[in-house]
Amino acid sequence: MTPVLADSVRLTDAGVEILDRREFPFRQRWLLCRTPDEVARAIEDLVTQSSGPYFATLYAMVLAAREAAHLRPHAARAHLEQAGAKLINARATNNHLRKAVAAVLAQVSGSGEELVASALAGAHAGDSLYRSRSQALGSHAASLLPAEGGVLTHCWADLYLIELVSAAQRSGKRLRFFCTETRPYLQGARLTAETLAEMNVDTTLISDGMGAAVMQSGEVDALVTAADRVTMDGHVVNKIGTLGLAVAASAFGVPFHALVQAPDQLARGAADVPIEYRHGDEVLHTLGQRTASTKVRGLYPAFDVTPPRFVSTIVTDRGPFEPHRIAEYYREGEANQ
Amino acid sequence: MTPVLADSVRLTDAGVEILDRREFPFRQRWLLCRTPDEVARAIEDLVTQSSGPYFATLYAMVLAAREAAHLRPHAARAHLEQAGAKLINARATNNHLRKAVAAVLAQVSGSGEELVASALAGAHAGDSLYRSRSQALGSHAASLLPAEGGVLTHCWADLYLIELVSAAQRSGKRLRFFCTETRPYLQGARLTAETLAEMNVDTTLISDGMGAAVMQSGEVDALVTAADRVTMDGHVVNKIGTLGLAVAASAFGVPFHALVQAPDQLARGAADVPIEYRHGDEVLHTLGQRTASTKVRGLYPAFDVTPPRFVSTIVTDRGPFEPHRIAEYYREGEANQ
Repeated sequence: MTPVLADSVRLTDAGVEILDRREFPFRQRWLLCRTPDEVARAIEDLVTQSSGPYFATLYAMVLAAREAAHLRPHAARAHLEQAGAKLINARATNNHLRKAVAAVLAQVSGSGEELVASALAGAHAGDSLYRSRSQALGSHAASLLPAEGGVLTHCWADLYLIELVSAAQRSGKRLRFFCTETRPYLQGARLTAETLAEMNVDTTLISDGMGAAVMQSGEVDALVTAADRVTMDGHVVNKIGTLGLAVAASAFGVPFHALVQAPDQLARGAADVPIEYRHGDEVLHTLGQRTASTKVRGLYPAFDVTPPRFVSTIVTDRGPFEPHRIAEYYREGEANQ
Repeated sequence: MTPVLADSVRLTDAGVEILDRREFPFRQRWLLCRTPDEVARAIEDLVTQSSGPYFATLYAMVLAAREAAHLRPHAARAHLEQAGAKLINARATNNHLRKAVAAVLAQVSGSGEELVASALAGAHAGDSLYRSRSQALGSHAASLLPAEGGVLTHCWADLYLIELVSAAQRSGKRLRFFCTETRPYLQGARLTAETLAEMNVDTTLISDGMGAAVMQSGEVDALVTAADRVTMDGHVVNKIGTLGLAVAASAFGVPFHALVQAPDQLARGAADVPIEYRHGDEVLHTLGQRTASTKVRGLYPAFDVTPPRFVSTIVTDRGPFEPHRIAEYYREGEANQ
């Protein structure tokens, strides 16, 4: 069965419909965004996250092409570039948005129906490419895991995880998952747990502080997370909490495999990746309910940076790399993938 | 100002009144326990925790003495011992319960009014001793901290933390606290955050996965937690999540000071301490609201065990010890403190 989250962005005549992950799985509500700006705002507001913003951005660019259909080719392209810049700025840490915009811009030409058709072709190509690269990555990651064993994951690795599980299941591996709930938005408790269960994976939810103890117990054979960005010197930027789990994995001899389609050539080191800080009030609430003292403030760095010494493997669509050799992903002179 | 939680157990003519920490600070509700059994159940149900069960047990033993007042001395003592055994079994990991029972049993004698008066004297002595030892411990802990700096704490260290903060404030130290929310019961978000704010401490709440990143950032000068139990070989047993923070502290050069009045002579090593597992459903809920997929199960080990290699200092009422020298706490031939 295909999990719900494998397909959570739709282009319709009315606009881009995005499954609202803030409420999933408790409610399956689709938010209609009629303009690229509305898509950007939805991404900023975490209506969708992980792989979701990539797909939303692809189709938001088609909306931008529809808006620009009456313009001459140069003006139309300028409109798409402007829309793309706003989309890219919706969230700073992950580099998917930039790639989605580039995928569409690479194809657009002309005006009128040609403009819209070429943007749509670019979006479809970007969609297919992302899925095929995720599938390749998932297969490589599955091959690193034992025939039977425990995997700890954090937050929601989306298509990478779905493809990893699919590949493991195809090859007859029997994996048990532990997933962290991932406060404050509970992506692990809601998105990962629900999707793994949909895929018939044996799944146990733990709170974010339990990872070290579960790894110490010997029940975990690998820590596996996505990476929002990997730098050319092997730093893994991912959802806040990854660093602590990686450090504990290292201390207890559990390998940590970070999944990313490709490292980012524009990020040589950790200093090149802006870390997004979200509003601290989110930490004081849980699904809208106040869960902390009213007398304090919260702090919410959305991502953390794991140095290469705490990373065993960076798994890409071209296979696994040791973190200090991740720059070898690129062939000489090759552009950012 | 004395924080509310510094005095959260009361003996009245009707029974033992316990401030319900499951709802604090959102509601200040006192639960009346009329019998020692009701106190044991309240402890088991986490109506009170941290230092709370110690005080609740002291006064539950006075209730047991009232129940036994009509019995002859031998039968009365047997009744108190039975009540004590039930109280001790309410929770297995912390050794405070055993000490509270012993404090009262050490004083009881006779029958009738003498029995009750002697039990009350034992409870009062245990109460005073616990407070004075916490004060000594707090002063020793404060002396390990810089004149100005950041402290990360986890869960709720109760009187140890209150005394540490009081001592630091008396000596003019300016400490900023980060506290983890401590899922699933949110003791950090509710009890620690509220109490530190009541004491006018600069306090920032983080979710449980953020500790490593905050320590990596250089904003934390020490990790400080209580310990539910410390073994004679220097293992620190404390609220789940402590281990991960301790490992990260070690990785990023932040000292970890664990607070306990005394190590437990009955626990030579980690294998001697039973780890309490609570119902996994707690991880699937937050303050009673379902916050996880309905398709998964939760796992809830209430405590974890930090090996001595990740502990810098064990701070006792007799001062600080390196973990591998904690057995030196006891003088030759001295009984468990």
